[in-house]
Amino acid sequence: MKERIRIGIVGYGNIGRAVERAVKQNQDMELTGIFTRRNPSDLVQELNDSKVFAIGEAKNCTDDIDVAILCGGSATDLPEQGPLFASLFNTVDSYDTHALIPEYFDAVDSAAREAGKTSIISTGWDPGLFSMMRVIEEAVLPEGASYTFWGPGVSQGHSDAIRRIIGVKDARQYTIPIEKAIEKVRAGEAPEFAIREKHLRDCYIVAEEGADLERIEREIVTMPHYFSDYDTTVTFIPAEEMRANHGKMPHGGFVLRTGRDDEGDGHVVEFSLKLGSNPGFTGSVLVAYARAAYRLNKEGQTGAKTVFDIAPSYLSLKSPEELRKNDL
Amino acid sequence: MKERIRIGIVGYGNIGRAVERAVKQNQDMELTGIFTRRNPSDLVQELNDSKVFAIGEAKNCTDDIDVAILCGGSATDLPEQGPLFASLFNTVDSYDTHALIPEYFDAVDSAAREAGKTSIISTGWDPGLFSMMRVIEEAVLPEGASYTFWGPGVSQGHSDAIRRIIGVKDARQYTIPIEKAIEKVRAGEAPEFAIREKHLRDCYIVAEEGADLERIEREIVTMPHYFSDYDTTVTFIPAEEMRANHGKMPHGGFVLRTGRDDEGDGHVVEFSLKLGSNPGFTGSVLVAYARAAYRLNKEGQTGAKTVFDIAPSYLSLKSPEELRKNDL
Repeated sequence: MKERIRIGIVGYGNIGRAVERAVKQNQDMELTGIFTRRNPSDLVQELNDSKVFAIGEAKNCTDDIDVAILCGGSATDLPEQGPLFASLFNTVDSYDTHALIPEYFDAVDSAAREAGKTSIISTGWDPGLFSMMRVIEEAVLPEGASYTFWGPGVSQGHSDAIRRIIGVKDARQYTIPIEKAIEKVRAGEAPEFAIREKHLRDCYIVAEEGADLERIEREIVTMPHYFSDYDTTVTFIPAEEMRANHGKMPHGGFVLRTGRDDEGDGHVVEFSLKLGSNPGFTGSVLVAYARAAYRLNKEGQTGAKTVFDIAPSYLSLKSPEELRKNDL
Repeated sequence: MKERIRIGIVGYGNIGRAVERAVKQNQDMELTGIFTRRNPSDLVQELNDSKVFAIGEAKNCTDDIDVAILCGGSATDLPEQGPLFASLFNTVDSYDTHALIPEYFDAVDSAAREAGKTSIISTGWDPGLFSMMRVIEEAVLPEGASYTFWGPGVSQGHSDAIRRIIGVKDARQYTIPIEKAIEKVRAGEAPEFAIREKHLRDCYIVAEEGADLERIEREIVTMPHYFSDYDTTVTFIPAEEMRANHGKMPHGGFVLRTGRDDEGDGHVVEFSLKLGSNPGFTGSVLVAYARAAYRLNKEGQTGAKTVFDIAPSYLSLKSPEELRKNDL
């Protein structure tokens, strides 16, 4: 066995914990430690056998970490941490504020280039594997129509939006792709859909005692952007039921493209994910891209990259020779 | 619009014709000509507005072609043409003799390196996109089980095997994936299958007049390697029905991987193709990889490559900036 790739985890929420588990599933890697903004001693209970450091100590660990996996949020953590850590380490992150990706890319790119490091931004599954599949599918079927469906799965953003309504104690919103719409695409009909024809929104709410349930329901289904363009169902449930049945974070979706060559033969390309845990799978993808960041840096390919820039062999534990012999 | 990528097609069978059509769907490409072993004047009838040359003339066209797409067969054409053309042009092919790929890679690699050219071998969908998906799925779910199902679609090899039986005039063999088996995989059960549990073989035969149909059927279903390990159905049909209903070459399949993280959350990753025409889609994939070969060569990345070595952005018509802005 060659030397192992030494991983640092920055941020210890759902994704940080998933990365910690995923590193153990990859025999060419080991975890140097977890860097947190909390008091490290508060975290010791939660950890299995991982070491924990205050986030400010990271700059003293540049000799002990090959790739830092940034597990903070896109709203406030990554815009600051991304460029900062890219100036110290090879990095991987799951930055997902779509509109600001070009800016974020540029900031990380200059920091990484200057430091001679390699940073892969916006990995995970969407952005990430789904983005990659959209591009590949379009490249092999240049004349056609593309579709992305999400779910069934929990949307954190929509759940949070409901929680901000007065009288709501807890909420879970499931995004449900409409099977009939997916079937239409698979049939090669290249349909056009209104927003409400692609997804349903299914909400489970724990209300405060004595809250006006009708008002809550009305505020949900009429909420602009989040719900008003969708068919939305609202179900009020007791707190115990929320705990028992809605604690998981499943997700997934479908990336489809249909095309037709000029002899009229139709083709359908489909990629889909059915995930028991959204952060769990995201962590697993981040770790595979950490391998790519490490290898690219060894080759001198520095600066910021995205999933579009990474050849599949960089993700794999196997050597190019093994891949050609066994996987073609 | 930048200068267009000039394509040469070597071999004008089903795949060569599909490449000719696919080049027209890609606005950054143009067809320089088709190179054939047949007498070029015999082909003029079949062509739309493409130029045709004797294959021997290719060596005089090195200034007029950026990428030669080799559309010959893997049994006898490519082992000779692959290295030969790699010494003259950037090339793309769909070499699919799995056991001999490492040898073929080495032969093409030395020819291409010496000439400063770039050759992408074994593209198409399997080997090709399916191979790539197997590697990506395994990389993001290192602990799990992988499955490939083929079809529903026509297998040329199996159809040819039946045609060699005495008394058989024509034959079409459909490989049918067993839906129940795919459902089991999707359910995350990580099942193990016997060969006959994954695929059925469905055969349509035009027999010669007076042929012993029982003997033909027995010879088919007991044929080692091809049929004896499968549940096989044999249907004798009139020649007109074969012409009317079995002229297309549909194909496709499924690449699945299931895995579980150590919290017990299961994930299913699935890639599938439903192809109206097997050669049609293969041609379309070859053309996308021709774009990659051209760009890699411009960057000085010479030698033989496979789908594992090609980052998605090389396949796309869009610039890296556009991809980051619109497709992440």
